[in-house]
Amino acid sequence: MKRIAIEEKVLNENQLLAEQLRKRYRQHGILCLNLISAPGSGKTALLEQTLERMDRGTRVAVLTGDLQTENDAKRLAKFGFPVKQITTGGTCHLDAKMIGKHLEDWKVEDLDLLIVENVGNLVCPSSYDLGEDAKIVLLSTTEGEDKPLKYPSVFFKSELLLLTKIDLLPYVPFEAELARENARRVHPGMEIIDVSSITGEGLDHWMNWLSRRLGKARAKLESVGT
Amino acid sequence: MKRIAIEEKVLNENQLLAEQLRKRYRQHGILCLNLISAPGSGKTALLEQTLERMDRGTRVAVLTGDLQTENDAKRLAKFGFPVKQITTGGTCHLDAKMIGKHLEDWKVEDLDLLIVENVGNLVCPSSYDLGEDAKIVLLSTTEGEDKPLKYPSVFFKSELLLLTKIDLLPYVPFEAELARENARRVHPGMEIIDVSSITGEGLDHWMNWLSRRLGKARAKLESVGT
Repeated sequence: MKRIAIEEKVLNENQLLAEQLRKRYRQHGILCLNLISAPGSGKTALLEQTLERMDRGTRVAVLTGDLQTENDAKRLAKFGFPVKQITTGGTCHLDAKMIGKHLEDWKVEDLDLLIVENVGNLVCPSSYDLGEDAKIVLLSTTEGEDKPLKYPSVFFKSELLLLTKIDLLPYVPFEAELARENARRVHPGMEIIDVSSITGEGLDHWMNWLSRRLGKARAKLESVGT
Repeated sequence: MKRIAIEEKVLNENQLLAEQLRKRYRQHGILCLNLISAPGSGKTALLEQTLERMDRGTRVAVLTGDLQTENDAKRLAKFGFPVKQITTGGTCHLDAKMIGKHLEDWKVEDLDLLIVENVGNLVCPSSYDLGEDAKIVLLSTTEGEDKPLKYPSVFFKSELLLLTKIDLLPYVPFEAELARENARRVHPGMEIIDVSSITGEGLDHWMNWLSRRLGKARAKLESVGT
């Protein structure tokens, strides 16, 4: 009982901080995305391709989470956008407090897009709101088709499913249509985009999604401003 | 402070239960293995191949953990050995209490081998002792080579690394030697076996490892008995 009460308290405190972040992003028309997946589903590879293709006029920043190492931040820093690593020690997810702390010395109001790459984990990150506009879940073709059924929370809470490593389909016993069906069983109508960071397949589709969402975040700001 | 104290209490309680399980296994010469990996690294596929190849005289049972679904238990039940699914709800790992509860109506003393397939997660399961003789970590060739550095705890605590999906090496940008080096940076001298559940490569090597460990567990019992 006591343990559950404390867990609830932690989640409530996180929620308050997340709402403050969300308000701040919306005041400045910033789109914030929270990328979640199992370790090795290709979050960093997708971000490399995304930053590579990003219109230089778009002001992007990335926060990338891991238990240990600065590896991902190093990989992403090459593209000239600000990137910061959050190392959580033993914690299996990012929380709103970590995000707030790592934004302290950035001029957040100058951003168009803040991408948060969560710790590689399909369970814990789904419970922690980071103030994002949308969660995005990645599932690779080398994992099982039944992952949406086994880890329903993150698939239910994510707006978009990126089916990654689509180039490996000929070599793996993965039924993509079944994976899509399973995702839509836990999240009816879920938007799904197939991508490959190796061949580039589907990346235009993903960049269009991103660009549409950036336009929406700006439009919301303007409608608030009038 | 309070939160940390409660987490410690939970871990201490778990440790006590785990030690009771361990004592029970050792009294009966049972080998218990705890399989840990990210979701989709191939734990269930490996277990299918393992049960398929298992000498029918070996008395094996499997406990398989997931947040939701009985899928893995259904896949593994086909081989005629007792299998039970543990669904954790939202919890990101198995604990010793769950194991004890699910063993209640099994004649544990009649077993030679108990395999526990943990929840797909590289973080949380590494903190919870389940009374096993050895943890085994799986890393697939479709994940990054730096996973041992990013998730050091589970690689440090595991006796054996199974490098899975080795058949995909020609199609993925994965440097197996670098992955091995990284594993041995966090766990010097770590034993590593390359396997593929699709082509069967390395499975003899894995079955030999298993057979050696079964012999050891029995030998320990005999030396205690004399």
